[in-house]
Amino acid sequence: TLGEYSLVYNLFSFTIASMLAAGLFFILAQPRVAPKYRISLIVSTLVVGIAAYHYFRITGSWVDAYTLSEAGNYVASGKPFNDAYRYVDWLLTVPLLLVELVLVLNLSREKSSSMLTKLVIAAGAMIILGYPGEIAMDNGTRALWGFLSTIPFVYIVWVLWKQLGDTMGDQPERVRILFRNIRLLLLGTWGFYPIVYMAPFLGLTGAESQVAIQVGYSIADVLAKAGYGVMIYAIAREKSLAEGYSLE
Amino acid sequence: TLGEYSLVYNLFSFTIASMLAAGLFFILAQPRVAPKYRISLIVSTLVVGIAAYHYFRITGSWVDAYTLSEAGNYVASGKPFNDAYRYVDWLLTVPLLLVELVLVLNLSREKSSSMLTKLVIAAGAMIILGYPGEIAMDNGTRALWGFLSTIPFVYIVWVLWKQLGDTMGDQPERVRILFRNIRLLLLGTWGFYPIVYMAPFLGLTGAESQVAIQVGYSIADVLAKAGYGVMIYAIAREKSLAEGYSLE
Amino acid sequence: TLGEYSLVYNLFSFTIASMLAAGLFFILAQPRVAPKYRISLIVSTLVVGIAAYHYFRITGSWVDAYTLSEAGNYVASGKPFNDAYRYVDWLLTVPLLLVELVLVLNLSREKSSSMLTKLVIAAGAMIILGYPGEIAMDNGTRALWGFLSTIPFVYIVWVLWKQLGDTMGDQPERVRILFRNIRLLLLGTWGFYPIVYMAPFLGLTGAESQVAIQVGYSIADVLAKAGYGVMIYAIAREKSLAEGYSLE
Amino acid sequence: TLGEYSLVYNLFSFTIASMLAAGLFFILAQPRVAPKYRISLIVSTLVVGIAAYHYFRITGSWVDAYTLSEAGNYVASGKPFNDAYRYVDWLLTVPLLLVELVLVLNLSREKSSSMLTKLVIAAGAMIILGYPGEIAMDNGTRALWGFLSTIPFVYIVWVLWKQLGDTMGDQPERVRILFRNIRLLLLGTWGFYPIVYMAPFLGLTGAESQVAIQVGYSIADVLAKAGYGVMIYAIAREKSLAEGYSLE
Amino acid sequence: TLGEYSLVYNLFSFTIASMLAAGLFFILAQPRVAPKYRISLIVSTLVVGIAAYHYFRITGSWVDAYTLSEAGNYVASGKPFNDAYRYVDWLLTVPLLLVELVLVLNLSREKSSSMLTKLVIAAGAMIILGYPGEIAMDNGTRALWGFLSTIPFVYIVWVLWKQLGDTMGDQPERVRILFRNIRLLLLGTWGFYPIVYMAPFLGLTGAESQVAIQVGYSIADVLAKAGYGVMIYAIAREKSLAEGYSLE
Amino acid sequence: TLGEYSLVYNLFSFTIASMLAAGLFFILAQPRVAPKYRISLIVSTLVVGIAAYHYFRITGSWVDAYTLSEAGNYVASGKPFNDAYRYVDWLLTVPLLLVELVLVLNLSREKSSSMLTKLVIAAGAMIILGYPGEIAMDNGTRALWGFLSTIPFVYIVWVLWKQLGDTMGDQPERVRILFRNIRLLLLGTWGFYPIVYMAPFLGLTGAESQVAIQVGYSIADVLAKAGYGVMIYAIAREKSLAEGYSLE
Ligand SMILES: CC1=C(/C=C/C(C)=C/C=C/C(C)=C/C=O)C(C)(C)CCC1
Ligand SMILES: CC1=C(/C=C/C(C)=C/C=C/C(C)=C/C=O)C(C)(C)CCC1
Ligand SMILES: CC1=C(/C=C/C(C)=C/C=C/C(C)=C/C=O)C(C)(C)CCC1
Ligand SMILES: CC1=C(/C=C/C(C)=C/C=C/C(C)=C/C=O)C(C)(C)CCC1
Ligand SMILES: CC1=C(/C=C/C(C)=C/C=C/C(C)=C/C=O)C(C)(C)CCC1
Ligand SMILES: CC1=C(/C=C/C(C)=C/C=C/C(C)=C/C=O)C(C)(C)CCC1
Repeated sequence: TLGEYSLVYNLFSFTIASMLAAGLFFILAQPRVAPKYRISLIVSTLVVGIAAYHYFRITGSWVDAYTLSEAGNYVASGKPFNDAYRYVDWLLTVPLLLVELVLVLNLSREKSSSMLTKLVIAAGAMIILGYPGEIAMDNGTRALWGFLSTIPFVYIVWVLWKQLGDTMGDQPERVRILFRNIRLLLLGTWGFYPIVYMAPFLGLTGAESQVAIQVGYSIADVLAKAGYGVMIYAIAREKSLAEGYSLE
Repeated sequence: TLGEYSLVYNLFSFTIASMLAAGLFFILAQPRVAPKYRISLIVSTLVVGIAAYHYFRITGSWVDAYTLSEAGNYVASGKPFNDAYRYVDWLLTVPLLLVELVLVLNLSREKSSSMLTKLVIAAGAMIILGYPGEIAMDNGTRALWGFLSTIPFVYIVWVLWKQLGDTMGDQPERVRILFRNIRLLLLGTWGFYPIVYMAPFLGLTGAESQVAIQVGYSIADVLAKAGYGVMIYAIAREKSLAEGYSLE
Repeated sequence: TLGEYSLVYNLFSFTIASMLAAGLFFILAQPRVAPKYRISLIVSTLVVGIAAYHYFRITGSWVDAYTLSEAGNYVASGKPFNDAYRYVDWLLTVPLLLVELVLVLNLSREKSSSMLTKLVIAAGAMIILGYPGEIAMDNGTRALWGFLSTIPFVYIVWVLWKQLGDTMGDQPERVRILFRNIRLLLLGTWGFYPIVYMAPFLGLTGAESQVAIQVGYSIADVLAKAGYGVMIYAIAREKSLAEGYSLE
Repeated sequence: TLGEYSLVYNLFSFTIASMLAAGLFFILAQPRVAPKYRISLIVSTLVVGIAAYHYFRITGSWVDAYTLSEAGNYVASGKPFNDAYRYVDWLLTVPLLLVELVLVLNLSREKSSSMLTKLVIAAGAMIILGYPGEIAMDNGTRALWGFLSTIPFVYIVWVLWKQLGDTMGDQPERVRILFRNIRLLLLGTWGFYPIVYMAPFLGLTGAESQVAIQVGYSIADVLAKAGYGVMIYAIAREKSLAEGYSLE
Repeated sequence: TLGEYSLVYNLFSFTIASMLAAGLFFILAQPRVAPKYRISLIVSTLVVGIAAYHYFRITGSWVDAYTLSEAGNYVASGKPFNDAYRYVDWLLTVPLLLVELVLVLNLSREKSSSMLTKLVIAAGAMIILGYPGEIAMDNGTRALWGFLSTIPFVYIVWVLWKQLGDTMGDQPERVRILFRNIRLLLLGTWGFYPIVYMAPFLGLTGAESQVAIQVGYSIADVLAKAGYGVMIYAIAREKSLAEGYSLE
Repeated sequence: TLGEYSLVYNLFSFTIASMLAAGLFFILAQPRVAPKYRISLIVSTLVVGIAAYHYFRITGSWVDAYTLSEAGNYVASGKPFNDAYRYVDWLLTVPLLLVELVLVLNLSREKSSSMLTKLVIAAGAMIILGYPGEIAMDNGTRALWGFLSTIPFVYIVWVLWKQLGDTMGDQPERVRILFRNIRLLLLGTWGFYPIVYMAPFLGLTGAESQVAIQVGYSIADVLAKAGYGVMIYAIAREKSLAEGYSLE
């Protein structure tokens, strides 16, 4: 209906604005952290930039997929809504989100390197293994690929949880709090995506569930990318101050 | 009518110009405040940038919603005017306006952090709780959600009023005056939005009230975003001078 | 007619080019004045930027309002020419022009602040009080609002004249000459706008007076914005040199 | 004809490319002259920027004015070619060309100021007095305005010739040569414009003379703006070196 | 089919986003390597910039080549899909990829120069010799040119393998590992392209193989350009740190 | 045919990408040469920027000149292909290529100045004298102008050969090698253009020769502009190192 179409359209626009504003913030805030932590803000800028570009494309697909009827209501136009496009976004941004976190931990180079390699491969595998299920027509195929995709998902969560816990030991109190928060944010937002994937198994179909899915995706994306990036910035800032770094 | 359509169109354009000019000002004025206060100007830039983007979208919706008749008058085209789009704007900018103010207070980091968290959550809740009422068709639903939205609204006002009052004690005279002014601006502009929300309860309908609503929203937005940002700049500048900061 | 349409079109384009060139100049010339005077050049940039944007919109309205006839002449298309759009421009730029002047005077902060507040409010009132008269259909309404608008107009002129005179006492000879010149430019250009407003009272109607009005507005805008800004720059430069400021 | 249309079109494009390239050069070459001479390069950038903008508009008018016939030849479309648009360009650029030269002379401030004022007013008068004649339909009007326009033209040439001669006395040999060259360039290029103005008196009409006029204007503009600007740069560079200025 | 068209379209878009993000990264990361290695990041930026531009063009060709049928499926439009366009991309980027690697080796200037010359000529020859075969209609011609193209291909691989092996002798352990990895990446990705070239010989035709080819090309391009560039950055960073270079 | 149209289209695109990438390189590489040689890289940037702009225009003309037939083949549309546009490009770029070379020689100012003047005039004459022949319909006119154009062509070659030879005497060995190479590149690429001019005399007409001409022009342009610019950079870099200039 009109209200549902508008809600999704407005939320897509909200997401684009959020990502662009966050990107501008990450660029303007670089002088506020020590040089060794700026690489994380660079990667945050890439993540929200990629997301804004993809939402621009998704919005175009949404507009093409529905048309205003005589009665003043939105109905399907016949052109498909390309929601699988989100996997293209995740294939780039999900690994980068992990890179961001590992970089701001500022581990030794051996540890960083090995951890980055494992996490990036696992993240790529998770997204690629989920794609065939997303575009499948039957629930059997969808379930199989979903299960396969959950394997690297669980691996990533386990590595992050354990590693973040290890790292926190030698951090100031403030940074420890921020790490706990970002770990929770990651779990809370990342958990949303597999739930949405399972929508067809829960009998959620039709226009209302489509709207609920898009609203959920948009909110999760803003929190998992822009919100997460602001928390990365906060961690970098706290660590910079703890190391005696002062503003230019 | 022609004059009413033009007035709204012209005011939307005025708002876009105001926001863009204010954003340019906040970027060019960064060297005029001490580094510790530049974060507030960064957030001001984000606020007016987001607002300009949203007004650009709202203007497009307004142009699509009305068409010039044979008689040289503007009549409804059949396409809806998407005024609920403003909630998307507020969902981003209202929290950022609060962030701006807390940052320029330059409180201790414990206090800033807890205050930011509470205010941002309350602001988000206020906007989200108002949205279902805005798109409702009946006044009962509208009233319910409006009432719920007012709860975090009152909470925000109370926290700000009290906190700003506390902070003023240890400020120079000039900064105290500016804080009093910005507190009044905030109350005066923020109070406008719920009043507009109540328009249907006051029997205000039809073209004339639509025009009055849009004129009011535009003026309030310019004052609550660009004007408020200039006052934030003034506070930051006064505090910088009081701390001995000199121009580069 | 063709020649008249082209003259207005060419002059609008001339105004856009003037404003953009002036804006580029004010940005590139910042290193040539002392830091304390750069704020005035920043505001000058905002003024000409806003004006260029508005002229771009006015030009579009002019092009839409006339169409080329079979006989090779321009005739009204039926779409209205939105000249009231200039009030939107003035509502932003006229206060900023006053801000520019007060800032380059470099008064004490108490004096600057109180003067800015009074002048900005008066300028806003002047424009807002003129708008209902501009879009009125009868001369009675037009005269009433015009008279009301003239009250803050006279107040502004009186404050500026008096204040500029006071300030000149303690300035070097060269700066004094420049202040006298800018005061005359302000009076000469600002006086043009109320005269144009009175056109209907002087029996000036039809195509020829429309052309004369637009030509006059364009020339006055270039002088009152770009020309005035260059004189502000000259004052800032002279004051900088008088204070021993040397080029980077 | 096809070849004639293409020649003019190609030359307009050549002029745009020349102006843009020159503008890029004047920006990139700023560090190669002493700070006191950079103002002239700033003004050069404005001149070629304005010219590029105007040529872009003139090219559009040329394309609209002719259409490809069935026989593969270009014929008039019915839309007028707006060549009077050049006066809009001159009204801005001709005064700026004079400003450029006076600034690079680096005279005393009293002398610069008075000379700038006289030359700018005379240049403006020259262009404005020529415009009514350019759009006139009969040769009588054209001759009258042309004669009036020649008065400030002769005044400018006389002031420049005399002043440049005076200034040369106290310049190094190299700078003297460059001044002589720029004086000749100015006379040679500026003289072209009144000659073109007189075309109708010499029985030059029709397509071939239109083409010759446009070719001549384009070449004169490139020489009088981009070429002249490069010579201004050469003078500024020589004077900088003579004063001991070294590259950054 | 719909799914196949969307997969290719989504992957092209993924490739564009990857290239643009990588380019932004290579620009922002310049301060993180020593000046002598920045030339490699400059060349990386050129490579991904060229690739993004070409993918933008290839995407346009793909969209033009297929159209949505009544049945909601994508069918050929009649316009050819211009996949030979990739050779234009390679003709520029393949030599630059080699330049990148040689530059980051930081060999003596005699060695660099001779190696660059040989590798660039061989790379150009490889691409140019492959093009006639790519656009040939019969397999005989295709095989001939493919064979000829493989000669410089083998030469390049041999030179790189040998040279990289020689260079590794005098490198820190970390850099040695990175060199081994980049050598493997180069072999793995570059080997993909001739395999795709041989598709017609393996009886791979029709829509499914077209999709497989495009998916393979996209993945190989992202790895061979963006991924390779990130590894070049890692090598440059390691070498910088090994030489005592510290962040600004 | 399809393949021939695509080959030319692809090569034009390759040329645009080459020019843009080269321009980006010349800007990013400025800090790698001593300040006194940066002027040559500035001029190189202008050359490839102008060329990219012109190729963009030539590509548009090519696309307009051919249309896809029912049979899936490209046939002439009736709109002429404007290849004479290249002369507009050369009129700007050929003099600039000579300026580039003279500047990087870093001769005495007397010698540079006189040489620049002679070469620029000769280059302009060469291009202008060739244009009437290029657009001529008969071979007699073409031959006459071609012969006249060859006179300044020979003069330029002779001056360059002799001057470059003289200059080499006092250069380091490496710079000498580079000068020899650039002299050969200049002769080899510049010689191509008159050969193309003579195509009609050799009975080369029709589609196949058109394609050969365009392919040849594109390759020659990339070598004569981007390739030549990279060699200029190499010379500037070698001379900078020889003079003890070190990276910032
Ligand atoms: C486990 C699982 C999945 C996980 C997806 C995730 C975790 C996506 C995260 C996306 C983010 C974080 C995007 C933007 O920031 C899939 C692929 C849905 C398939 C079903 C199983
Ligand atoms: C209390 C209340 C509301 C408050 C809205 C406010 C306070 C909006 C502020 C917007 C600003 C400041 C925008 C731009 O700067 C709603 C949502 C209308 C719903 C009804 C109750
Ligand atoms: C007194 C008066 C007026 C004054 C207008 C003025 C003074 C406008 C100035 C505009 C400028 C300076 C624009 C750009 O720079 C109105 C509104 C026409 C209404 C009638 C009475
Ligand atoms: C004397 C005279 C004229 C002079 C025009 C001139 C001198 C124009 C110069 C233009 C330049 C220099 C443009 C760009 O650089 C007119 C107006 C044709 C009218 C007839 C008499
Ligand atoms: C040997 C060979 C080929 C090799 C192509 C290669 C090696 C391409 C590499 C492309 C890259 C690396 C692109 C982007 O990064 C061809 C031309 C297919 C023709 C058949 C034989
Ligand atoms: C001698 C000669 C000619 C020479 C042309 C040349 C030498 C062009 C060079 C162009 C370059 C170098 C372009 C881009 O870099 C013409 C005009 C064809 C006409 C026939 C005689």
